[in-house]
Amino acid sequence: MAEMTSRPGRHFLQIPGPTNVPDRVLRAIDRPTIDHRGEEFAELAKGCLENIKAVFQTRHPVLIFPSSGTGGWEAALVNTLDPGDRVLAFETGQFAALWVKLAENLGFQVDFVPGDWRHGVDAAAAAARLGADRNHEIKAVMAVHNETSTGITSNIAALRRALDEAQHPALLMVDAVSSLAAIDYRHDEWGVDVTVAGSQKGLMLPPGLGFNAVSEKALAAARTAKFPKGYWRWEEMLALNEKGFFPYTPATNLLFGLREALAMLREEGLDQVFARHQRLAEATRRAVRAWELVIWAANAEEYSNSTTAVMLPPGIIETAFRAVVLDTFNMSLGAGLGKVAGKVFRIGHLGDFNDLMLAGTLAGIEMGLELSGVRYRKGGILAALDYLCETRRQ
Amino acid sequence: MAEMTSRPGRHFLQIPGPTNVPDRVLRAIDRPTIDHRGEEFAELAKGCLENIKAVFQTRHPVLIFPSSGTGGWEAALVNTLDPGDRVLAFETGQFAALWVKLAENLGFQVDFVPGDWRHGVDAAAAAARLGADRNHEIKAVMAVHNETSTGITSNIAALRRALDEAQHPALLMVDAVSSLAAIDYRHDEWGVDVTVAGSQKGLMLPPGLGFNAVSEKALAAARTAKFPKGYWRWEEMLALNEKGFFPYTPATNLLFGLREALAMLREEGLDQVFARHQRLAEATRRAVRAWELVIWAANAEEYSNSTTAVMLPPGIIETAFRAVVLDTFNMSLGAGLGKVAGKVFRIGHLGDFNDLMLAGTLAGIEMGLELSGVRYRKGGILAALDYLCETRRQ
Amino acid sequence: MAEMTSRPGRHFLQIPGPTNVPDRVLRAIDRPTIDHRGEEFAELAKGCLENIKAVFQTRHPVLIFPSSGTGGWEAALVNTLDPGDRVLAFETGQFAALWVKLAENLGFQVDFVPGDWRHGVDAAAAAARLGADRNHEIKAVMAVHNETSTGITSNIAALRRALDEAQHPALLMVDAVSSLAAIDYRHDEWGVDVTVAGSQKGLMLPPGLGFNAVSEKALAAARTAKFPKGYWRWEEMLALNEKGFFPYTPATNLLFGLREALAMLREEGLDQVFARHQRLAEATRRAVRAWELVIWAANAEEYSNSTTAVMLPPGIIETAFRAVVLDTFNMSLGAGLGKVAGKVFRIGHLGDFNDLMLAGTLAGIEMGLELSGVRYRKGGILAALDYLCETRRQ
Amino acid sequence: MAEMTSRPGRHFLQIPGPTNVPDRVLRAIDRPTIDHRGEEFAELAKGCLENIKAVFQTRHPVLIFPSSGTGGWEAALVNTLDPGDRVLAFETGQFAALWVKLAENLGFQVDFVPGDWRHGVDAAAAAARLGADRNHEIKAVMAVHNETSTGITSNIAALRRALDEAQHPALLMVDAVSSLAAIDYRHDEWGVDVTVAGSQKGLMLPPGLGFNAVSEKALAAARTAKFPKGYWRWEEMLALNEKGFFPYTPATNLLFGLREALAMLREEGLDQVFARHQRLAEATRRAVRAWELVIWAANAEEYSNSTTAVMLPPGIIETAFRAVVLDTFNMSLGAGLGKVAGKVFRIGHLGDFNDLMLAGTLAGIEMGLELSGVRYRKGGILAALDYLCETRRQ
Repeated sequence: MAEMTSRPGRHFLQIPGPTNVPDRVLRAIDRPTIDHRGEEFAELAKGCLENIKAVFQTRHPVLIFPSSGTGGWEAALVNTLDPGDRVLAFETGQFAALWVKLAENLGFQVDFVPGDWRHGVDAAAAAARLGADRNHEIKAVMAVHNETSTGITSNIAALRRALDEAQHPALLMVDAVSSLAAIDYRHDEWGVDVTVAGSQKGLMLPPGLGFNAVSEKALAAARTAKFPKGYWRWEEMLALNEKGFFPYTPATNLLFGLREALAMLREEGLDQVFARHQRLAEATRRAVRAWELVIWAANAEEYSNSTTAVMLPPGIIETAFRAVVLDTFNMSLGAGLGKVAGKVFRIGHLGDFNDLMLAGTLAGIEMGLELSGVRYRKGGILAALDYLCETRRQ
Repeated sequence: MAEMTSRPGRHFLQIPGPTNVPDRVLRAIDRPTIDHRGEEFAELAKGCLENIKAVFQTRHPVLIFPSSGTGGWEAALVNTLDPGDRVLAFETGQFAALWVKLAENLGFQVDFVPGDWRHGVDAAAAAARLGADRNHEIKAVMAVHNETSTGITSNIAALRRALDEAQHPALLMVDAVSSLAAIDYRHDEWGVDVTVAGSQKGLMLPPGLGFNAVSEKALAAARTAKFPKGYWRWEEMLALNEKGFFPYTPATNLLFGLREALAMLREEGLDQVFARHQRLAEATRRAVRAWELVIWAANAEEYSNSTTAVMLPPGIIETAFRAVVLDTFNMSLGAGLGKVAGKVFRIGHLGDFNDLMLAGTLAGIEMGLELSGVRYRKGGILAALDYLCETRRQ
Repeated sequence: MAEMTSRPGRHFLQIPGPTNVPDRVLRAIDRPTIDHRGEEFAELAKGCLENIKAVFQTRHPVLIFPSSGTGGWEAALVNTLDPGDRVLAFETGQFAALWVKLAENLGFQVDFVPGDWRHGVDAAAAAARLGADRNHEIKAVMAVHNETSTGITSNIAALRRALDEAQHPALLMVDAVSSLAAIDYRHDEWGVDVTVAGSQKGLMLPPGLGFNAVSEKALAAARTAKFPKGYWRWEEMLALNEKGFFPYTPATNLLFGLREALAMLREEGLDQVFARHQRLAEATRRAVRAWELVIWAANAEEYSNSTTAVMLPPGIIETAFRAVVLDTFNMSLGAGLGKVAGKVFRIGHLGDFNDLMLAGTLAGIEMGLELSGVRYRKGGILAALDYLCETRRQ
Repeated sequence: MAEMTSRPGRHFLQIPGPTNVPDRVLRAIDRPTIDHRGEEFAELAKGCLENIKAVFQTRHPVLIFPSSGTGGWEAALVNTLDPGDRVLAFETGQFAALWVKLAENLGFQVDFVPGDWRHGVDAAAAAARLGADRNHEIKAVMAVHNETSTGITSNIAALRRALDEAQHPALLMVDAVSSLAAIDYRHDEWGVDVTVAGSQKGLMLPPGLGFNAVSEKALAAARTAKFPKGYWRWEEMLALNEKGFFPYTPATNLLFGLREALAMLREEGLDQVFARHQRLAEATRRAVRAWELVIWAANAEEYSNSTTAVMLPPGIIETAFRAVVLDTFNMSLGAGLGKVAGKVFRIGHLGDFNDLMLAGTLAGIEMGLELSGVRYRKGGILAALDYLCETRRQ
């Protein structure tokens, strides 16, 4: 079978998503498709729709689209805005930039607060922009909670405060694609109006589902928003979801997987899930520092617990480095994207992940550095293991 | 495990899609997700993108979205039209009506040629409308090749001729969701500009992929079309597809399944696939007639080879009938949708389907008729078996 | 992939075992193997060992071997007998004959009561033999509960009475390979000393597990039996089973499947399982009679509820008939074995099986009869459907 | 689902078998069972029976039993010997002892050359025993190629020479259970008469298949051997194997897996497979030495490339150590067995295994040593990584 690689052993998929899909989820997906208009399906859907709320930390509805996370971006915008509306966004990295590009393609006017890609959303800058917008022309604020391209987590609570202090009515839209179910994320408490997520990161599924968690304010906006919309329209979907159905054929087999993934998250406990990601991320960062390489994120309080972007010394091309790691050690690392292409590589340490998978990951990087002729100090992996030992569950 | 039913034996999923997903495809989907930016993925994608063309009988590109078929409807419209454009459509059934509703939700003006749901697209009516449209205000003609809700297949070649004879430049957009890979469908020969399809019918996959096959004329239209679009934008996707990549995370595991499904279709041969569907459909119709029930489709030349809608005698509610069949015989049949809700039930006989699966299906219907107190004549299944015997491969 | 057939649709595996393995069981087997000396394994094993008892209707231990059912035959003999011991057996069909051959290969002396293969165990003949054996030279009586080769179920309770009335101390050994979990079988109530079974019939697993259910009398015999034995030795296995372990590496993945299969049997309820098999078997027999073919089993009270062997009219070779059915309709039927090779074909209607699967099966046979030029009367399938309707669950 | 653990991430199954079953093999096993008397099965079986030969490096037949490797031990003995025959064996560890126990249970007289479990088979001692056996009472020599309990590989070629030099006609029987497809093993070249193997080690399958590779001399012996045998009888099996069939129901789904595993071994190439195991084993040993722990095997030339047994310092109980590793790091290590219980733990580094899986494994051990309060020197993992880097494929 031509599709099969001849690399022995398990592949380490350490990109920041899709993540390593656990066997339980894969096996759940591998079930015969069922009638999406029948009672068995309705039970499946109602369970997913109800149980997904806890993951967003919301009591409000969550919509599930057969789409990538990008579809979730589009759905957030087209359901709540009028054509040509002005929105505010922050250049925290490639995914912020792509969301802006999507918004512009849809004809929205985007105030894109520039950034150096090494910092999260600047809440002070946001406050300034919002304060200056006396006519409330800005209809929505778009922020990426966890920038997958840079390993930087923004302070959404602070952004909320900026909105509140400016008494600005703009909707708050947040991309939690690579933080959901990995980093503490609080849709209700932070007053987020639309949270966008995807299936292939902390939710441990293959790609193919996009999510919108919504607030009442967002739902109210949707009732009057004039942007033309069809596929992404919340209205019919919410109405049909009540009974466990969808306005068009849902991605049934991924919902089988979602049910299983939600069960796994419940079994572990969301707090444990966050603590696990924090611990594995900190171990990763200790390894990076021990290697005397530079964590791309400038501020420690913005370090991402799902992804670490690492700068390579001048003269080392990340594509070449990653190719060595892939070819020699059967591990996929994340590419540098957009403005940081060629400069950083990214380590995904989220999803169904544990200490020894991390050890294998760091070993692959350490050996990759060696084989690539990077100037580094040996023993990053030991620094990580030391931390993992210290912080073991007693 | 609450999700598991206690009905013994295999479920018969005889709705007109999703269809019975073959084990080969389910097992292909049940593989660890891979890096969607790596070479292994690029090979997968390029193979799918190339081999899917034969199924549409086209030499032009086919786009694959993480979406349902409804997403394919939207992609067809938003890529090629300007806001508020006028389009022509034909009321052949529920899916025609839903596509129109979607178009209207997107702000297009739809001339919806009324129909009685028992006939396909009226090419003569189309010709009249197009001929009368001297200013060429109609920018696109939308037709459903195989109406899943009624079991009626329209003559797309005739519709093409109507356009040609009227020398009308409107784009021809066709929904082949429930005909592709089941009923002979010729994107290039029939001069279709955008063909819309989904994964969960003749392609034998779970739902979650939407398709657009496009013509050069459609691509030219896309270059100037002004409707705002983001997710569905063909342009970046076509550019990235050349290298085996996508502008956002693709539904990788469904692509594993697509590769396998395309291999299965090649192994059987597309002509054989069509002939098999024709034969099983004709056997179904013979059973219906032997039961002295009425095939909903009015004209024999428009009988669908993927779905048969059957009228129940007055006094029999299809929901009750289908519930008996499901509860007693573990088979899902298609509901009557929209205007024919309560009146017809639908038999899906497409996808990975064979003689004995059909026999089981017809047996379940015949027993369901008996148990539901329907006035019918016994032995429909024998009429079907007779035909299957006569037409066996020698 | 050369291993994949190009026959579309689901294969109908209607041999009397291996049976159609349900997806739930296949997916359970498709899990990473675990440490067979760890706690997770011990829980798995203890659960299986405990829950399997109900299926044998016993309170005594059941041993599970990595083997086929044939291994269970050997284990029964070598654990309880001395070299060269005399045993009594009954020629009910091919599997009785094979068990005898195995016993002879092992050096036992077998009194093989001849039979015409159309009747079950003759309890009166047994009584006569046992009564004549005043010195109790016969150490064991071997009987096949359900003769898979002929579709005949013997009356084990009557055989037990023959032993009791003769006050004969011989052990009673019964092959329940093709009856367990399909036909009411009562290890304890019938005073069976060793019941032999396999995984691939009513237990709905792939082949690879052999079973011995044992009585206290059998265990006592095992403590003094002198036949040399290693792999099959009950002693160490029973001791280790107490803690959930095995004396050598068990077939872990099949045990995953066994756990799931036992859960399915519990969900349905064993009485329901027997009733379902009875009903589907009777429907099968009505079809055979309606075809004016002959059920091989001579006595109605011995009809098997798991398998029906059918005589073909003179001039029709069963291998040719089955080849037509396989090639044309993608269904495997059971061959005629041993003395009835060429004369009968066998229909397996056991395991994870339901009304519509039976309808498909009977349709395939009816069409196979037609295409093979067999003289038969049409409509056997209708007779079956009539019965299925009459006996539907209300 | 009670059976599911809540430990996140992938389990590291680093016992010396069962090994980590690759997804390709698991998915192959997860296929519907087929008729074991049909053509599709015959092709499967013939392919397996032919392609397995290369793995044993033999041109002679290989027999496949539904059994564990222990069944293979029994089959080797009972097919070739007479009751009570004398055999010669060597106490290299627990599996040698268990094979001897099995032989004794079967009534054979075993000359068990004592050993300290830290050395392989003593060819000189063998020569002495064989030389002294002038009447050729010893009918077979039993040796374990790779002692799974101690991580010691014996020199089978030297043992062959001892037989040859003594001109002794005893059969040479070798257990290659934990070396086959991991360590170079040459059935034909070394003149082995029966090689015993199992599915769950280098063959990367779940347990459930036992193997006998045989020589012509062994086949000749089998023709006259008087030990009573049924299940394990080579004769019928070899005859039926010619046509792709078996004398009783084979473990079909494991054969699906075997076909896939053999394909994987061919794709990688057997020499590459051996080289990979050698390299990963040497890296493991370097880690052990760097930790200042002791490799149990006394002689470097007998180090096993599939398993390393490691002595723990006095005062450290291996069961406690392994429990820490399992509970804290989700990794199963091998227990000390028999005489070395409590003293050594074992690392399995065979099967579908690669550099990063080894790194994770060694990290888990290093952290386990730390958490268990073992006196050790840090950095064993670095020693391993250094070696892996040095020996990377260029």
